[in-house]
Amino acid sequence: MSEQPTAGMVIIGEEILGGRTQDTNLARLANFLGPIGIAIREVRVVVDEVEEIAAAVNALRTRYTYVFTTGGIGPTHDDVTADGIARAFGVELKERADALAILEAYYAEGDLNAARRRMARIPGDASLIENPVSAAPGFRLENVFTMAGVPKIVDGMLESIRPQLAGGPPLLSVSIRSNALEAEISEGLEALQNEMPDVRFGSYPFARSGRFGTRLVGRTTDADRLAAAEEKIVALLERLGKEYVREDPDAA
Amino acid sequence: MSEQPTAGMVIIGEEILGGRTQDTNLARLANFLGPIGIAIREVRVVVDEVEEIAAAVNALRTRYTYVFTTGGIGPTHDDVTADGIARAFGVELKERADALAILEAYYAEGDLNAARRRMARIPGDASLIENPVSAAPGFRLENVFTMAGVPKIVDGMLESIRPQLAGGPPLLSVSIRSNALEAEISEGLEALQNEMPDVRFGSYPFARSGRFGTRLVGRTTDADRLAAAEEKIVALLERLGKEYVREDPDAA
Repeated sequence: MSEQPTAGMVIIGEEILGGRTQDTNLARLANFLGPIGIAIREVRVVVDEVEEIAAAVNALRTRYTYVFTTGGIGPTHDDVTADGIARAFGVELKERADALAILEAYYAEGDLNAARRRMARIPGDASLIENPVSAAPGFRLENVFTMAGVPKIVDGMLESIRPQLAGGPPLLSVSIRSNALEAEISEGLEALQNEMPDVRFGSYPFARSGRFGTRLVGRTTDADRLAAAEEKIVALLERLGKEYVREDPDAA
Repeated sequence: MSEQPTAGMVIIGEEILGGRTQDTNLARLANFLGPIGIAIREVRVVVDEVEEIAAAVNALRTRYTYVFTTGGIGPTHDDVTADGIARAFGVELKERADALAILEAYYAEGDLNAARRRMARIPGDASLIENPVSAAPGFRLENVFTMAGVPKIVDGMLESIRPQLAGGPPLLSVSIRSNALEAEISEGLEALQNEMPDVRFGSYPFARSGRFGTRLVGRTTDADRLAAAEEKIVALLERLGKEYVREDPDAA
């Protein structure tokens, strides 16, 4: 499945590291990129400090096709993501006329104060990412997309950049829920993995209404191989005399 | 606040990177470490691959006082976290008698199959972390604590290692919810930050029942300074003619 473009993600925010706020943008981004055929391979969560942000972005932008950052582009003093991106690329950060024009059009006269003007600071010659929710733009520099942290704005910005992303074949998956314990299917699943190395098999134990079970998952970009994998998982469960349900993967 | 020990975290699991599973262990660990006075400074989420796990652990274990990993220590072929830790430290991974004895005591005769025996593989001379939920132990090697991914087991293992963690002064915080917009308090908050550099101030916009507002937060390990910061936040909001509510920080 090496034909899939890859992605890294940098989540910026002390409120997430402190446990006060539960991040949901990772799952949001993953569920946006999955159908496009782009696979997230690594995520880093860092504090709101210029050097930390720059180091994380630089580590990921050379390794992965795309990098996405969320958080830290608002109007307050602890919003330093734009500074971090400028540092990462070694470019200047300054107020840009095109970004300022967007803010001027959005805010009533007198409401565009110094704090909000900070949101017109854009690193180098980055292109702007449209924000259909609250105007203040994100920006793209080379393969790095910098977005807000508020989930609804992330959704809007992702739609804005969709045409810029070159995807690959989407990763397809099957998910089969069974009453097998993980240790009961482990040996059979490993044999399956060795037999079909182009499919990635995983198992995820769960407890539901006090009963334990395992969800068996197969993933590949090839629909025929996926169908073959599904039948082999089912055959394994039947051989072991287990109950199972084929799940809608999107609901899994 | 440099007197606080620091922590890094490595979350292992393709199911999290794929968006299928929402991680909750970061917030869980943060809320456990906070009252002990240990601050999470960085988190990495990586795929279930030995080299990726080893690289992340090695990057963090030299930078932070403690490193905690979650996920990938179960009985199946894609559980390779123990292999990753062994690789990171350059030590052998083999079945250990003390870990095996725990599994033998827990499982009925005949139930301890080859898959479950994998969970007795421990890197080098790591000490075991008791698992009060499902027996299979985690382990500690130097400053790295390796735990399961299932949240309930993480809770149990954290309680097991609590006596081993040397904390610092707990980070105290105040949280004040107001109807101010972020851009309205930004300038005043930055002035506050410059006036009290030993307190970290943050602002978090929210929308509730269609009304926008901002939560103003101050954090420090010093109770007196915190009280002073709280009064200054309140004075700022009153100067601006805003409504506000002092929140229970634990409920924020």
